[in-house]
Amino acid sequence: MAKIVMKFGGTSVGDVNRIRNVARIVKSEVDNGHQVAVVVSAMAGETNKLVGWTKELSPLHDAREYDTIVAAGEQITAGLLAVALSAIGVSARSWLGWQIPIRTSNMHGSARILGVETKLLNERLAQGQVAVIAGFQGIADDNRVTTLGRGGSDTSAVAIAAALHAERCDIYTDVDGVYTTDPRVVSKAQRLDRVSFEEMLELASLGAKVLQTRSVELAMLHRVPVRVLSAFDEDPGGTLLCDEDDIVEKNPVTGIAYSRDEAKITLLRVPDQPGVAAAIFGPLADAGVNVDMIVQNVSEDGRKTDLTFTVNRSELDRALSAIQNASPHIGYKDLIHDANVAKVSIIGIGMRTHAGIAQTMFRTLSEKGINIQVISTSEIKVSVLIAEEYVELAVRALHSVYGLDAK
Amino acid sequence: MAKIVMKFGGTSVGDVNRIRNVARIVKSEVDNGHQVAVVVSAMAGETNKLVGWTKELSPLHDAREYDTIVAAGEQITAGLLAVALSAIGVSARSWLGWQIPIRTSNMHGSARILGVETKLLNERLAQGQVAVIAGFQGIADDNRVTTLGRGGSDTSAVAIAAALHAERCDIYTDVDGVYTTDPRVVSKAQRLDRVSFEEMLELASLGAKVLQTRSVELAMLHRVPVRVLSAFDEDPGGTLLCDEDDIVEKNPVTGIAYSRDEAKITLLRVPDQPGVAAAIFGPLADAGVNVDMIVQNVSEDGRKTDLTFTVNRSELDRALSAIQNASPHIGYKDLIHDANVAKVSIIGIGMRTHAGIAQTMFRTLSEKGINIQVISTSEIKVSVLIAEEYVELAVRALHSVYGLDAK
Repeated sequence: MAKIVMKFGGTSVGDVNRIRNVARIVKSEVDNGHQVAVVVSAMAGETNKLVGWTKELSPLHDAREYDTIVAAGEQITAGLLAVALSAIGVSARSWLGWQIPIRTSNMHGSARILGVETKLLNERLAQGQVAVIAGFQGIADDNRVTTLGRGGSDTSAVAIAAALHAERCDIYTDVDGVYTTDPRVVSKAQRLDRVSFEEMLELASLGAKVLQTRSVELAMLHRVPVRVLSAFDEDPGGTLLCDEDDIVEKNPVTGIAYSRDEAKITLLRVPDQPGVAAAIFGPLADAGVNVDMIVQNVSEDGRKTDLTFTVNRSELDRALSAIQNASPHIGYKDLIHDANVAKVSIIGIGMRTHAGIAQTMFRTLSEKGINIQVISTSEIKVSVLIAEEYVELAVRALHSVYGLDAK
Repeated sequence: MAKIVMKFGGTSVGDVNRIRNVARIVKSEVDNGHQVAVVVSAMAGETNKLVGWTKELSPLHDAREYDTIVAAGEQITAGLLAVALSAIGVSARSWLGWQIPIRTSNMHGSARILGVETKLLNERLAQGQVAVIAGFQGIADDNRVTTLGRGGSDTSAVAIAAALHAERCDIYTDVDGVYTTDPRVVSKAQRLDRVSFEEMLELASLGAKVLQTRSVELAMLHRVPVRVLSAFDEDPGGTLLCDEDDIVEKNPVTGIAYSRDEAKITLLRVPDQPGVAAAIFGPLADAGVNVDMIVQNVSEDGRKTDLTFTVNRSELDRALSAIQNASPHIGYKDLIHDANVAKVSIIGIGMRTHAGIAQTMFRTLSEKGINIQVISTSEIKVSVLIAEEYVELAVRALHSVYGLDAK
């Protein structure tokens, strides 16, 4: 007998029939003799509807009221799943964030979990009662409901699994696991049986939308074994997120991620002197713009240089106006930008021990006539910025050259 | 400057535009210098949707989960109205039942309010912040959300007004007050400027659907001046519920109510002996059936009699099977029933001092050829059971004969 946490996303609980289906999946784990805590998202579409109403009333709404409104979505699903479980003979009780309580920071709209009280939960679990927990929500020290940001139910599930010392945390979703790349782009993409926390963190940050990044960080920090699996298929498949040490065969490259949410900004003929980076990136930070890749050309005359960086495409306008407002302090000749760019990344813990991985990437793209605009690397990934129109071509070529294509 | 409570029903907050309209009405009271607490219902249709899902999953759902699910409706409206108020420059904060807290019994689905904590509310009101309170909900001592039964937001509003010692409680709805009778049946129905608590209690119990009966009881108990007025009209109209002593001109009849939710059951040739009433009404009470009017014929031979009573039409099947199961203990010759009946009632505190009021009713119905099947009376009302097809005719005739028609 083990303690396990199961999490079901919005499409898995999208209507009454799907909630019944989830109840059956939960029942099978109860029948296996496990103590089960289930974390649920809002029914698909519900959060968007509530967010839509809120924004319609006020684009600059109070984040505390936003949280009160949208948290109702998960509340409804939690109650409905408890009803569905009772209907098939499984003892169940719903729990809202404030009832457990799940304590969070008071950063409304994107709060961080500070702690999960487990005393009451453990008592009920020990009595054989399934705890159906509203994901995505908690309570701040001012007694107000908080939410964790979009996709936050993944984080709720991992945090609860960590607090309960659960044997594992199963994230049920509409795909049957983590793939070597997006199967919609590469039909030969393969499901990974295992992926290390570090790799998953890079995959999630770099564009794979299976899990919220924060949930992977938490899982890595607390060493919670997380499985990603399908709520819809007879064979749920599954990818296990685990320690690097638990992966025997370390491929040089485990996965290829891509993101179209990119835009590139270049400042031409910036003074090549100390303090200019601060003059540029300070105003961007103040405007809440996240800068990703940065490259600075070698200056020819030692006095002027070109500087290129990328931002999230949705933040491009904000970034441009921040730069323009600060132009007297920066001093550039011209400001150009390009939103038709995309980032393609290769990720793998094997990179640490295999040489020439990046070189293979550059050569492969070059052979396809794809120009690399910016490069950034870390210990286990290489990202390149390319023209958006080449994304599929690049991903397919890289998938093939690193031996990831299914036989 | 006064403290006032305003309550808005489901149609008043039925969509984003209507919520904006409500915000404007609230703002006008704030601009008048009042401290304002607003109680809101779920958006029209929302509660029915949530109840529908719950019943679809399990007709015999756990009432605690039902409460968790449906309470989300008022939570959403409270947050949205707080956002709408902020958007027009009115400081506002939403409050859920458990945040205030509003303590209730643990009779889930139809809980009773035990107390309303006012310390936090009063602090915020004194700071000029509007409190937007989710109606219909509270919290029981097991830390679970409770709801007060359909229409319960009226009761929330009156209970909060009583606890805050508010100057008045304004119930905004889709009609502009309490009428002498249903204006859909009698076009000459008139809005009452004032109605006593006692009369309103009878009107609400006997079929007028303007206010939840429990809210009128509470208002009467705590002497909360309640106004019923329209959220939609330029001129909101309004009927004041007040003490009998505050009504100068006491008409013999103030209003005519009717209800089609009736069914009649007759037991023929029941033994006319002590204990038989207990043998009949005991099993009905055990089956949760409320019995309303009762009439027992004078027995001809002193040994057998006929007994007639009415129940809510939705409880007819349950009542019949309870009687049939108990038939060995009762001993009747035949059991007949009729669901094509309706109850028509005249209500007025003036009845206490005017004679012949009931006689006028009986004569009027007789002149129209309407047979009276059962009669029941109290100090300030007379109710009769008639065939359903005569309802409109009876209501119109009575409205006219008691001088209630508008000039």
